[in-house]
Amino acid sequence: MCPYRLVLEHVTSRWGVLVLIELLDRPYRFSELRRAVGRVSEKMLTQTLQTLERDGLVHRDAKPVIPPRVDYSLTDLGREAAEQVRALATWTQQRMDQVQKAREEYDASKGRL
Amino acid sequence: MCPYRLVLEHVTSRWGVLVLIELLDRPYRFSELRRAVGRVSEKMLTQTLQTLERDGLVHRDAKPVIPPRVDYSLTDLGREAAEQVRALATWTQQRMDQVQKAREEYDASKGRL
Repeated sequence: MCPYRLVLEHVTSRWGVLVLIELLDRPYRFSELRRAVGRVSEKMLTQTLQTLERDGLVHRDAKPVIPPRVDYSLTDLGREAAEQVRALATWTQQRMDQVQKAREEYDASKGRL
Repeated sequence: MCPYRLVLEHVTSRWGVLVLIELLDRPYRFSELRRAVGRVSEKMLTQTLQTLERDGLVHRDAKPVIPPRVDYSLTDLGREAAEQVRALATWTQQRMDQVQKAREEYDASKGRL
């Protein structure tokens, strides 16, 4: 597989999409981000953030304070990716009526109703 | 999960991306499309096309001829999706150098080199 395909899979992964879109608004701490994304396990969110950080899309800022504080934000590269992913997500949301209608027609034609 | 998330997963799935991008050029017959996409099993390509057809993104045109001939093309809705997916794929390809550099720095910082 071409290397770029893997990056595309990272930014379009289930949690990758949601993390990138949330971070377009502002930086988040881990626990805040977990609440914002919803229904994601700590392990999955950690893994998603590490993958995006390694690709250079997310910046992890660990502040040397007590208690420890870690903020996640988009890099410039990450912002470019996030804006495109959000546009695609928005497009999909706006077209759900058409998709739903197509599915009903398809299912009816296959006798699935 | 919100219903639109599933559609987003269809258009950004490994084979969904490649099928949509190929079909932007022109309609394809199944076997041609399989060669163009590369390394996809018949079963996976069939499943990908059925999913995209059910979502109303791909049109399946079975011509009543002997031998049977089936052409796959984008619907108007599918073209909108495909253009955005191609833009994201192109962006990812163009930024691979930056991603690669970020990965090297990340791995070095984690002592993985």
